[in-house]
Amino acid sequence: MITSLNNEKIKKYLKLKNKKYRDMEELFLIEGEHLVKEALKNQVLVDLLVMEDIDIDFNYTIVTKEIITKLSSLESIPKMIGICKFLDKKEITSNKVLLLDNIQDPGNLGTIIRSSLAFNFKDIILSLNSVDLYNEKVIRATQGMLFKVNIIRNDLESVINELKKKDYLILGTNVRDGIDVKEIKGKKIGLVMGNEGQGVSDNISNLCDKNLYIKMNKEVESLNVAVATSILEYELGEL
Amino acid sequence: MITSLNNEKIKKYLKLKNKKYRDMEELFLIEGEHLVKEALKNQVLVDLLVMEDIDIDFNYTIVTKEIITKLSSLESIPKMIGICKFLDKKEITSNKVLLLDNIQDPGNLGTIIRSSLAFNFKDIILSLNSVDLYNEKVIRATQGMLFKVNIIRNDLESVINELKKKDYLILGTNVRDGIDVKEIKGKKIGLVMGNEGQGVSDNISNLCDKNLYIKMNKEVESLNVAVATSILEYELGEL
Repeated sequence: MITSLNNEKIKKYLKLKNKKYRDMEELFLIEGEHLVKEALKNQVLVDLLVMEDIDIDFNYTIVTKEIITKLSSLESIPKMIGICKFLDKKEITSNKVLLLDNIQDPGNLGTIIRSSLAFNFKDIILSLNSVDLYNEKVIRATQGMLFKVNIIRNDLESVINELKKKDYLILGTNVRDGIDVKEIKGKKIGLVMGNEGQGVSDNISNLCDKNLYIKMNKEVESLNVAVATSILEYELGEL
Repeated sequence: MITSLNNEKIKKYLKLKNKKYRDMEELFLIEGEHLVKEALKNQVLVDLLVMEDIDIDFNYTIVTKEIITKLSSLESIPKMIGICKFLDKKEITSNKVLLLDNIQDPGNLGTIIRSSLAFNFKDIILSLNSVDLYNEKVIRATQGMLFKVNIIRNDLESVINELKKKDYLILGTNVRDGIDVKEIKGKKIGLVMGNEGQGVSDNISNLCDKNLYIKMNKEVESLNVAVATSILEYELGEL
């Protein structure tokens, strides 16, 4: 049992609340039973801190409520906190690839990851300037689905050029004009979604073969980006 | 020009950050130029505080940065803060009604309102235990679309019973089973969406004629509620 905030392991874990240390250690924190179980199932859990004995097939450490409270970013303290290793980056293997250009809101990114798995967009490319994947709000909004998709942070231009060589149709989005998503035919698709305020950046937009449009009431300028992504994936994904 | 936080008007407006006072005064705050312009267009703006002269067809008051900072809930201080009167509650007139059962996340409610207008669900019934419509995070997430829909906070059971008398088909949602939304035919629809964690409550679920299902990867238990609502509205709304 660990009772001190000055314990070396706890001091190290506390630093993981900071992106710089996460990147250095290639570790991140998760909170609550649901996420811990998903992490365990997906073999990324490396340590587990709990406040009392639990029934789980993993070698956990009991710590004080004070330690859990300090590690947690939630208002209501979770029963357990897991430490996970960074997810493996695999090659792009699926026919439906999502490319995210400068997504900034952590809740949006998490929600997008959850929807992407739901509609079988299992490769997600995150632009270099997007929000950190291991931000606690991103992880919470994924509801554990981040362990089941392949997420790669990379330069979008070079990934798009690679996809084009492999005959993917690159589809952008534009609130002003575009083709109704229902009209799109094609097996290999790279769907590009842009920043919450500015949309897809010009240099990326120029690389898109077509722009998509979701049919909606003209009084509404745009949808929330997680909603728009989900509707397009719902229409384009194969189930 | 107002320079003091002790000004009676400013003291009153500061209290509007609190739900109790909003309900008492039937007023709420909005931040930033986009929302202010939408409020003005929709004739709900009653006062406007700015930091310097602006070009707007409304009788504004200049205040100090300190006052705007205190009134704001944003990290980056907005250029203006508007004071709006509560929205009128109208009769249900549209054929597509959204009923929200205990929605708790303000971002979700705001996003749902934005999508509802996009897909022509212009009457929204909010259960008595849902998050406050005039919460600053709700308003921000609506992107000003809340001024263009009819939102009524009421007891869901009684509204559903009224809708049934008027031949609306009441559609619930259930993550375990249901009818694919694509199979639904019907002009008059009441769509019921439930709480983020628990879904639709049992007493409301029992009043539904059918349950809907969105076809998705079996690995995913559920979608974010704002995403699920938007996809169902996208399928059911008339454009």
